[in-house]
Amino acid sequence: MRNILFILLLSLLAFGCKNSSIKTAELKGKETKTNQFAIIIHGGAGTILKKNMSDEKEAAYKATLEEAVKVGHEILKNGGSSADAVEKTIQVMEDSPLFNAGKGAVFTNAGTNELDASFMEGKTLNAGAVAGVKDIKSPIAAARKVMTNSPHVMLSGAGASIFAKEQGLEMVDPGYFFTEKRFKSLERIKEKEANKTATKTTAFYDSDIKNSKFGTVGCVALDKEGNITAGTSTGGMTNKRWGRIGDAPIIGAGTYANNNTCGVSSTGWGEYFIRGLVAYDISAQMEYQQKSLDEAAHDVIQNKLTKLGGTGGIIALDKNGNMIFEFNTAGMYRASMNERGELIVKIYKE
Amino acid sequence: MRNILFILLLSLLAFGCKNSSIKTAELKGKETKTNQFAIIIHGGAGTILKKNMSDEKEAAYKATLEEAVKVGHEILKNGGSSADAVEKTIQVMEDSPLFNAGKGAVFTNAGTNELDASFMEGKTLNAGAVAGVKDIKSPIAAARKVMTNSPHVMLSGAGASIFAKEQGLEMVDPGYFFTEKRFKSLERIKEKEANKTATKTTAFYDSDIKNSKFGTVGCVALDKEGNITAGTSTGGMTNKRWGRIGDAPIIGAGTYANNNTCGVSSTGWGEYFIRGLVAYDISAQMEYQQKSLDEAAHDVIQNKLTKLGGTGGIIALDKNGNMIFEFNTAGMYRASMNERGELIVKIYKE
Repeated sequence: MRNILFILLLSLLAFGCKNSSIKTAELKGKETKTNQFAIIIHGGAGTILKKNMSDEKEAAYKATLEEAVKVGHEILKNGGSSADAVEKTIQVMEDSPLFNAGKGAVFTNAGTNELDASFMEGKTLNAGAVAGVKDIKSPIAAARKVMTNSPHVMLSGAGASIFAKEQGLEMVDPGYFFTEKRFKSLERIKEKEANKTATKTTAFYDSDIKNSKFGTVGCVALDKEGNITAGTSTGGMTNKRWGRIGDAPIIGAGTYANNNTCGVSSTGWGEYFIRGLVAYDISAQMEYQQKSLDEAAHDVIQNKLTKLGGTGGIIALDKNGNMIFEFNTAGMYRASMNERGELIVKIYKE
Repeated sequence: MRNILFILLLSLLAFGCKNSSIKTAELKGKETKTNQFAIIIHGGAGTILKKNMSDEKEAAYKATLEEAVKVGHEILKNGGSSADAVEKTIQVMEDSPLFNAGKGAVFTNAGTNELDASFMEGKTLNAGAVAGVKDIKSPIAAARKVMTNSPHVMLSGAGASIFAKEQGLEMVDPGYFFTEKRFKSLERIKEKEANKTATKTTAFYDSDIKNSKFGTVGCVALDKEGNITAGTSTGGMTNKRWGRIGDAPIIGAGTYANNNTCGVSSTGWGEYFIRGLVAYDISAQMEYQQKSLDEAAHDVIQNKLTKLGGTGGIIALDKNGNMIFEFNTAGMYRASMNERGELIVKIYKE
């Protein structure tokens, strides 16, 4: 009888301790560095399908993603900071007309370009952002300056431009952001609006034009000092009006970094990323539920965001250099490089 | 020998199961409704000290706080929605020159008034916000309209005003927001800046003027249907420049609501509330760590925000009608009313 009771108790004990032992094992596993330094980028997520893409266009996207990620990787390899790597990498994408950020920014309903960006350092939890700027060549550089050289986190509109100018950043004529392709997208959407009797919401989010309406670029990097930095830059949404601000300049929605957990940059239907606090939520699940980066990112994008009705994705890396691409759309322009220089460049779901 | 082993095993078992049994007990406790409906408000936190306050001023603040909270309470008692209660309650404070929101908004460096507000419903996680608006009489009404009548979460500047006008909201001449008291605060700060050789940051955050520089109003309510709504409205920071946006219009920083956890409205040094995702973090700790509202609010304000260097506070209530005021400053204008009509109106720490 005693023996049976003994076995029963042992079983109960094993069962009762199951959760804590799994957690201990996980935490131990997480302490192993996968990469001393690493970098991961995105150039927007959406209904990106092979059938709609020419070989030339695909090659052009892949070449720019590779160029961008290599710029940051070189900085990290040489012992540079993750902050420098993120800024310089994003600038390659901002300077390209391919992505909806900087030069390739989409047009607002008023036919202007209004750009947003944010930047966050995981060591200090310092952050900076600009929203609705029209004449700053590199919004990501401006976001970083807001972080380092102002007492604020978020500056907007003409005021943000005055600040950027004071800081010696390169200003451009608003015409700099004109590209034929993006202007045609605006015209196409306006035409659809005019021909339709649909509600404003329907017109805004017509599914067959989704791909041309959203887009963002972002980068997260871990340097040899163990510092994580994240940044995001965008032209926002084609045909946006009323001074709409999306998730890209919002700390915790578009961008988040914390050396104790992870760094995240988001891309997608911004309104849902704001309501879901997507970037911070991944960090919160890691901190409060001891989830791995993979588990947290999967839950936030595939379960929580999807249930809310949002589409898009994130790139993220944790303090040990583990990296993840997570999205619920048909594709995401993306690339990464680890400490061994192994390069991944992808566009479609695979 | 066996008996000893038996006792040892029993002890181990009890110890190993400690955490889960506490959690079960806590969860059970949380299911009991403290109030079927409830409302809690703030009118800003800061270095509010009895010695700097005349009896008349104190009475005026308390009277307006009482008037505001009673407006919302009446709506809830009669079966109205928490969304209506929050909007109408905040409007009482917006219309008063006492608080830094609406009529009593502080002045920017340019001598203008630029107002921010946000609104969130816990049932749907829908949200709306306006930033940097100059001619909308009630920014909280505009934030709610952004939520209900636009496909966006956040609108800014002149664009937000166009939207508000289209929605039939009351527009005012920017001169409506002029108050002698706030304009003198701006002049005093500018004088200090001119006389000082200190850095910009020092000038911005001179501790002896903190009280006159920050301020916000906010409200969280739970209605008989179990729906939580939260809202925040502010004039921002005296002498702000460069189109600075604080935490008040940022979902997750200044305002958050989720029927499964809690509703929160923040007030204080906005930059820290953005970096700390203060409003959402309280909800996240409740969701992911099974903390009570009290435990989560205490940790976020007294530990995390304080460690980061931030000052301010929050009001919050959970799905069972438990309410809390939590702040790390000398005072916070605040009030609450429960289902029994019990009224609390306080200013200083006590």
